[in-house]
Order: sequence, then structure tokens, then C-alpha cells
Amino acid sequence: MVSSISSTCSLNLLPKPTSCSLAVADPNSNPRKTQFIKNNLIPQSNLHQNNHNEPDHHSYSSDDGIESDVSDSQPIRKLKPSTQLKRWSRARSIRSGRRFNIPLQITSTESINTTTSDVNFQNDRNSISSSSTSSSIAEKSDSEDEMMEGKSIYMVSDGTGWTAEHSVGAALGQFEHCLVDRNCAVNTHLFSGIDDVERLMEIIKQAAKEGAMVVYTLADPAMAESAKQACDVWGIQSTDILSPITVAIAAHIGVSPSGIPRGAPGHHVPLSDDYFKRIEAIEFTIKQDDGALPQNLHKADIVLTGVSRTGKTPLSMYLAQKGYKVANVPIVMGIELPKTLFQVDQRKVFGLTINPVNLQTIRKTRAKTLGFGDTMTGNYSEMDHVRQELEIAGKIFAQNPTWPVIEVTGKAIEETAAVLLRLYHDRKQKCSMPRISKRY
Amino acid sequence: MVSSISSTCSLNLLPKPTSCSLAVADPNSNPRKTQFIKNNLIPQSNLHQNNHNEPDHHSYSSDDGIESDVSDSQPIRKLKPSTQLKRWSRARSIRSGRRFNIPLQITSTESINTTTSDVNFQNDRNSISSSSTSSSIAEKSDSEDEMMEGKSIYMVSDGTGWTAEHSVGAALGQFEHCLVDRNCAVNTHLFSGIDDVERLMEIIKQAAKEGAMVVYTLADPAMAESAKQACDVWGIQSTDILSPITVAIAAHIGVSPSGIPRGAPGHHVPLSDDYFKRIEAIEFTIKQDDGALPQNLHKADIVLTGVSRTGKTPLSMYLAQKGYKVANVPIVMGIELPKTLFQVDQRKVFGLTINPVNLQTIRKTRAKTLGFGDTMTGNYSEMDHVRQELEIAGKIFAQNPTWPVIEVTGKAIEETAAVLLRLYHDRKQKCSMPRISKRY
Repeated sequence: MVSSISSTCSLNLLPKPTSCSLAVADPNSNPRKTQFIKNNLIPQSNLHQNNHNEPDHHSYSSDDGIESDVSDSQPIRKLKPSTQLKRWSRARSIRSGRRFNIPLQITSTESINTTTSDVNFQNDRNSISSSSTSSSIAEKSDSEDEMMEGKSIYMVSDGTGWTAEHSVGAALGQFEHCLVDRNCAVNTHLFSGIDDVERLMEIIKQAAKEGAMVVYTLADPAMAESAKQACDVWGIQSTDILSPITVAIAAHIGVSPSGIPRGAPGHHVPLSDDYFKRIEAIEFTIKQDDGALPQNLHKADIVLTGVSRTGKTPLSMYLAQKGYKVANVPIVMGIELPKTLFQVDQRKVFGLTINPVNLQTIRKTRAKTLGFGDTMTGNYSEMDHVRQELEIAGKIFAQNPTWPVIEVTGKAIEETAAVLLRLYHDRKQKCSMPRISKRY
Repeated sequence: MVSSISSTCSLNLLPKPTSCSLAVADPNSNPRKTQFIKNNLIPQSNLHQNNHNEPDHHSYSSDDGIESDVSDSQPIRKLKPSTQLKRWSRARSIRSGRRFNIPLQITSTESINTTTSDVNFQNDRNSISSSSTSSSIAEKSDSEDEMMEGKSIYMVSDGTGWTAEHSVGAALGQFEHCLVDRNCAVNTHLFSGIDDVERLMEIIKQAAKEGAMVVYTLADPAMAESAKQACDVWGIQSTDILSPITVAIAAHIGVSPSGIPRGAPGHHVPLSDDYFKRIEAIEFTIKQDDGALPQNLHKADIVLTGVSRTGKTPLSMYLAQKGYKVANVPIVMGIELPKTLFQVDQRKVFGLTINPVNLQTIRKTRAKTLGFGDTMTGNYSEMDHVRQELEIAGKIFAQNPTWPVIEVTGKAIEETAAVLLRLYHDRKQKCSMPRISKRY
């Protein structure tokens, strides 16, 4: 296994460039300009690591030692990019798109400046250094750089990559205390459909350059093993998301996994009942949005009710993706609720409520998004009106004690959905331990 | 740690029942009847395991040996429920809901019979046996039982549980070759919001009774450790989904995880730009469904086009959940496409195509779902018509070579979305290694 990896690592991947400038907002940019980082082959002899456990996280270190003879028991090696690489990485982060409040447009000067950037792996103490980092963006003030920089997580999959994305997203939820106030920042990069070892190695090499960690879901065990060993050899922290659970299930059910990634050529998903059920649920839910077609409420699995901006629509669509037919009925002051709401099976009706301050914030933002000025919104987002409407909703809920009322304040759509489905299945199953059961 | 677990395991959880009869379709059923399994306390002295690696998977074995002194290096113990437990488990499976084509209604006779069921842990060679299993359902023919039985996977989370569900779903994709033709069957049971150790232990105990494996995402490290140790002690195969990736990220970014589960009381998700962006995307996409408001196509991030039943709507909604504003424009024979489709930024338009045989199957099923007879559907699902419409679409795609055309045959919505977003970000970023980047 080790020898096969050795040959993999010495693959000459040139001349393909392994990075890009993410010139998102400039459709006329010269593609040559976007390839500002030359890709350099790293001779295997340059890959030196040590076993020293340095207190400093992510510190690159090298001395005479192990090359490709990596065993499981070795501690994870920590990497620390050089100062220059850090600046390059910052410049790169600034250019990368989403979640920035600054405009994405890159001026032509910046583009030209970055074309001279060049990052090499070098066989020195720092292992990685950038031989030339002349991005003008990197010259910005430290405080701005501080805000923009971030650690990178590479997610690599031979399938869709959604499992890696989902798991990393969930894990990042554990660092919200640091992420929200921008004391730390993380950039994730999802590479999906990576089904050959060459591209896999290119990505891992790029991860090493960028000081990124690697998370992978590779159905093909040989690919997963290659990823693990390459990351070990290159001193990259890596996590295999798919194998542990696949191996456990294989042992549990006594069947070997196929090793075929989702979406592989010739790997067709059968047109199952579930496929049709899910599509039907999505189409039903769209048609029933915002109180439409109250005569169809009896056909819904779940009926949501609440005042405007309690998240009925996004929650409905989230549940629809899971195969539930959802109808939502808005509570609007002065407008009578449809009679059918009280005639359908009352166990499937759920009320949504929210803190008035939170609701006002959401409504104000909504009005702005729609381009309404304060005068145009009437009293929609005025606190008195908000409170009054919530009171009316509260009375309706009190009159219908069968409806569970879910507090959505500060809850993500997924969280409200989890609470609701727990109640829904609990009521259906009359179970002391609420559970959502599925058959595969 | 071990001693704390010992005390946890000996918690007297009575008199709460730990299972339910899933009397889904009978709203008038007596709740007492649904609690057909008495919950018995398992004295810790009864928990005997051994280290023998038996070739037979899932074989329960016990002799004098380790009690709670379980180390990581030990091989996973395999469980095999007794024949009687198996029958009980089958009976239970028959009663559990989704994915069954048989009616869920349980006759009153069956309910009465099952009330006498009683499962005990016993300190005999088999470790688990059911002292009385008199369900009439369990007496059904072997072939029917065979179809209905299945291995159970318990998913336990102190948050929403969606990460566990997603990961298990992805891993089960590796066993499609066995699941699709019903050579094996798996039942998953999701327990979300489990934030105290008592309920956690109840569930793990129930998993042991049912011969289930346990998968968990527990943000609180103490809970995760309790789960691990309890599963070890009880001889249950277990997989921790969240900890490995959380620990890796913590080391990578140099920040400790909060240990607070998503959706914990007082743990509010801030109203971020992303929150509003996502909701706006969902609402936009609903309004733009099925060719509505072609004058708004320029506001969309992504425009989908293709003939009826190529999955435009579900794909649109899936992408909207990810924050993309999507419009979809159907290609219908005899109806001209809106001019705006050719006026908007052509790099955001994507064509969908499908194999005609597959399309016909989908259209026929669709017509049935809508309750249309063969005469009412006209030529909608006739092969000649299907082929003709696909040909027209093909010509339109050929005339617009900027539009990538995605073949959706046999692809799950998630897979088509992955292919599309890869292309979308590739075009935006002009990158040699297409990636989807996000900032947290």
C-alpha cells in the first residue's frame, strides 16, 4: 500500500494549474490572468517530516525522517505556512467570494498585479514559502487583513460532496462563538466528482500549499486510502467522513459496500416510490404556499400556521424536500382563517410563533429587500402592529390546544424542522421515545 | 470515566417504556396497548462480553470477561439476537411505518396480542431472549417475514440529527446493490434533541434489545463519551459522526469547540445575511416556478430549461435551499420560449435532458398520480410525443451552445445539483479545479 502511494505522490501533474483567482465578478477578465499561480512539481525527496509534537498548531517542520512510511499511530503533523504564504493566502481569501460584504469586483490593476504571484514548495525549514507575492491587496492594512483571512478546509468527494459539506457545516456550528464575531474565519472549498487519483493528488497538493486541512468522502476504498496516505506524507490534517460509518454498517448488515460513488457513470438511481413521493411533495407544497388553495388542506401531511415572517415558507419547502406534503396558512390581522383549517385532522396542524423584537427585525429587512421605504410598508413592521398580530395568533393557538406551537426565535430552519418532525412522528406513533423511522 | 459510566448504566430508568407499537393509522387506539413491551432493568452484572472474534457477524456471545473496562483497541463486538428476539424484531418491523407498501392499520386483535409481549435481557449464553413473543404478526409466513425484516440503525443526536441522517443515508448508498432488490433491508430510527444522559441510555438500551447499531452526533463531549462507553459495555457497534471532524477542525483553527448542540435552549442562530439570502432565494424560486414571470429571469442566479418532467422544479427548490435564486422555464411543444431567456446572461442558463424511456415512465407515473386515465393525458406520455419534444429541446440546446446540457437520467436531485453547481462555479471562477467556496 505504501509503495503504491509513493508512486502516486511522484506523479507529474504539470502543466495543469491547480489554483484560480476566483475573478467572480469580471466576465471579461483574461483567463490567463486568472491562472496567477504556477504549479510546481514537488520532488518526493523534498517531503520531509518529523514526529515532534510542537505546541504550535499548524507548524510546518522538517528534518531527516519518514518519507512515505507512514503508520496510523503517528501523531497528526501540524502545518504552519510561512509569513509570505500567509499574506498570499490572505490576498487569495480576499478574492474568494461568498460571505463577504465587500464587492467582489476585482480592479484590473489588482488582476495584473496578481499575475506575477508564484508559490513554490521549498526544501527549507518552513517547507512552504511564496517566492513572489506582489498582490496589491496583500498590502492592505493589518486590521483589514485580519478580518479577511481564514483557515481553509478542502472537502473532496468522488460523489456529490454534500455529505462532506453537511458534516463540516455541522462541525463548524461548534465554533460559532468564534466565527460569528469574526475572531476566526474559515473558508471551505468543495471539490465534487473527483474520481481519479491524479485530480485527487492535485487537490491535496494545493491543500498543502494553502495550509488547508482535507476532509474527504471517497466511496472507492483505494481512493480513500490514497487520500489518507498522501495527506500523511504531505503533513496535512485529514478526516475521512464516509469510511467509518460505511465500515460499521457493512459489519452490522453483513454486506460489503459497493465502493461506487453516487453519480458515477452508469450508476443509476432507480425510479423508486420515494423518488416520486418526494417530487409530489415539493410540487404540492409550492402550490399550497401562502394560504393558496385552502380546499386542499386535507391532502397535506402537515399544515403550518402563523403570522407573516415566522418562516412558514422556508420551513414548508425544507419539509417538502424530506417528502412531506406541507400547506401553510398565514394569520393576517383582519383576514379570517379558512374554515378547512379547523376541519382537517387537527393533529397535523402546527402553529409557529416568534419573539416580537426578532419579528420586527425580520420584517424590516424583508421590506428593505423588497425595496419598500418606511412609508410604503404601512404598519407591517411597526412594533405595535407586530405585537397585536402576535397576540391574535396567540389567541387562535389558545383556542386550538391540539395544535403544538413552536417557538422559532433564533432557530435555523433545520432546527424548527427537527422539533416539528419529532412532535409529528411522536403524535403519529404515540411513542414514549419520539423517533423518525425510515426503511431502506 | 469508566466509573461514571458504570453508574450511568445502572440507572433505573423504569417505569418509562422504551418502545412503542407505532399504531400509526389508528387514532382511537388505546395508548396502553401501544406500550406492549415492558422495560426491564438490566443489572450491570448481567453484561458479559468476550473478546472472541467470531466469524459470524452480529453474534451475541458471553462468558466471564470484561465488564466496563473497555479500551479502544478492542475489536468491535458482534451481536446476534436470539431467534425469539428476531421474531419479535420482525413483528416490530412490520408495525413500523414508512417504505412499506402494506397498510399500516393494525387490527385490534393484533394490538391485543402484542400487549403481552415482553423482552428481557437474561444472563444466559444468548444474553438476550424474549420471554414471551406472542404477536400474531410474527406468526406470518417466513417469506413475508423475510421481506419485512431488516437490520436497525439508531441515530442519536443532541441537535437536529440531520447530520447523522445525512451521513447514514450516504453510507447506505454504498449498499444499494443489496437494498434495492430487498436482499437486505435497513430500518433507521432518528432520535433528535437527546440532551440528557438518561434518555441517551434508554435509547442505547433499546438499541441493544433490538440488535441495532448506534450512530451518534453529540456536541457535548461528555455525552459522546457516555454513548461510546455505554455502547462498548453493552456490546453495541457504534460510530461517532461529529467528534472526529470537530476535533480535526479545532486543531486546524486552534479554537476549542463550544460543546453546545444546535438548537439547545438559549442557543440562538443570529439573523445573518445568509439567513435572509436563503429565505429570499426560496421565495424567489417558488414565484418563478414553471415559467412564471419571465420578466424576472434577469434576477435569477440560475435559469433551468428542459421539457416537462426533467426535474426542473425539485432541482430548483434544492438549489434554492442552498441560497441560489432559480428560475425554471419549461420547453413545451408549440409554445414559444420567452425572449428574456435569450437576453439574460447566457452563462447562467442550463439545459436538462433525459433518456426518452425514462421520461415516459416518469410521465406515466405522474399522470397516474394526478388521477388521469390513459385517455385524459392525450399524448403527454406517448413515446412518439416524448421523443419529438426531446428532439425539439435538443435543437434549442444546439442553437444555444453556451448552455451546458445536463443529462438527468438516473440521477438523484442532489446529483444533478452537484453537477450543475460544479459547472456554475467553474464558469464564474474560470478555475481549472472547479470548486464551490464558502466563507464561514
